[in-house]
Amino acid sequence: MDKQMMPPDVVVRRLPLYARTLAYLQQEGKKSVSSQELGARINVTAAQIRKDLSYFGQLGKQGIGYNVDELLQHINRILGLSQDWNVVLVGLGPLGQAIARYSGFGEKGIHIVGLFDVDPHKVGTEFAGLTIRHVDELPMVAREHQVRMAIVAVSAEHAQEVVELLVKAGVEAILNYAPVIVQVPTGVWVRHIDPVSLLHSMTYYLARESTLPPA
Amino acid sequence: MDKQMMPPDVVVRRLPLYARTLAYLQQEGKKSVSSQELGARINVTAAQIRKDLSYFGQLGKQGIGYNVDELLQHINRILGLSQDWNVVLVGLGPLGQAIARYSGFGEKGIHIVGLFDVDPHKVGTEFAGLTIRHVDELPMVAREHQVRMAIVAVSAEHAQEVVELLVKAGVEAILNYAPVIVQVPTGVWVRHIDPVSLLHSMTYYLARESTLPPA
Repeated sequence: MDKQMMPPDVVVRRLPLYARTLAYLQQEGKKSVSSQELGARINVTAAQIRKDLSYFGQLGKQGIGYNVDELLQHINRILGLSQDWNVVLVGLGPLGQAIARYSGFGEKGIHIVGLFDVDPHKVGTEFAGLTIRHVDELPMVAREHQVRMAIVAVSAEHAQEVVELLVKAGVEAILNYAPVIVQVPTGVWVRHIDPVSLLHSMTYYLARESTLPPA
Repeated sequence: MDKQMMPPDVVVRRLPLYARTLAYLQQEGKKSVSSQELGARINVTAAQIRKDLSYFGQLGKQGIGYNVDELLQHINRILGLSQDWNVVLVGLGPLGQAIARYSGFGEKGIHIVGLFDVDPHKVGTEFAGLTIRHVDELPMVAREHQVRMAIVAVSAEHAQEVVELLVKAGVEAILNYAPVIVQVPTGVWVRHIDPVSLLHSMTYYLARESTLPPA
């Protein structure tokens, strides 16, 4: 890929939304889709869709739009989804348990191959078809299953420590549910899931509206 | 606020991270913080911090940095967090149950005042100190508790329908955990929590690395 054509991260983050939406269109039996139609589903403009996809080659045809099957297959390949990915999950509290039981990962090529906790009441028990192991066994399991990704669902206090264990075990991409921004070395990716911050980013707008003078 | 000073949404989304980080600094007993230090914790540049905060007035002092208490209080006010917010939660599957039990919302001024589902085995039962009600009762509860925000944790198939019920009941901001992009009318805010898409936005980079020729 040409250096100047490297897509910015914001575009990379939108690609999975395109893939998901194209998969829905495929299920609905659609053969082609315009950038307008795709944009409306994802809440971005048609121009943005065309610009985003232009990073990855000439994909649409003027006046015809995108071939749904082809575009989906192409984006899945770009996203590295022609292969499956093994992940480990650390933290089996109520949230971790919900994550472990969520079938949406496996359907999308993400396989949870290891569950970890430190609670002696949990370690050694079965959950969602796997045995919960002590985090000390992380390096072994990561090596055995060629794990490059992890999901962290521990408390804010323990998140940084767990992330460091994961990085040491060779993990290169982390999805962090703990309400704290974790630090990772260069070459390791991290995304945060933070419902409180997302809600607060909306109270900003609601508070503004409610302070408007009555009409 | 001056029209030209309206912060873009990306800045608004970062504000809660500033607030969270300042609260941690406050707990650690720090009185002041530089834009460098704050930036390092949030993984943005010092210049970005200064630019973001400049939308909200002159907040720091050259060479001294930001007063932690004052900046936190100021950001909380901007985010509308000098008041508490009532929210309802729709969908009491494993994920909804984990959300209902999560103490992190209440600590940050977000109060879940209603739980809703349609499953007759769930409706009428107690969970996390509340009675699960049928979604038909949504308008009544929303009115009674002046609810303007909601969390949606139903399946992809039902998310759009539930969102429409919420909007009809007067909800103006929705946090959607269902793996589908929901459509809302103008004036209603929505944020999506989508772990699969976040993981896929990282497999993009991992797939790239592993296809590099060996050194």
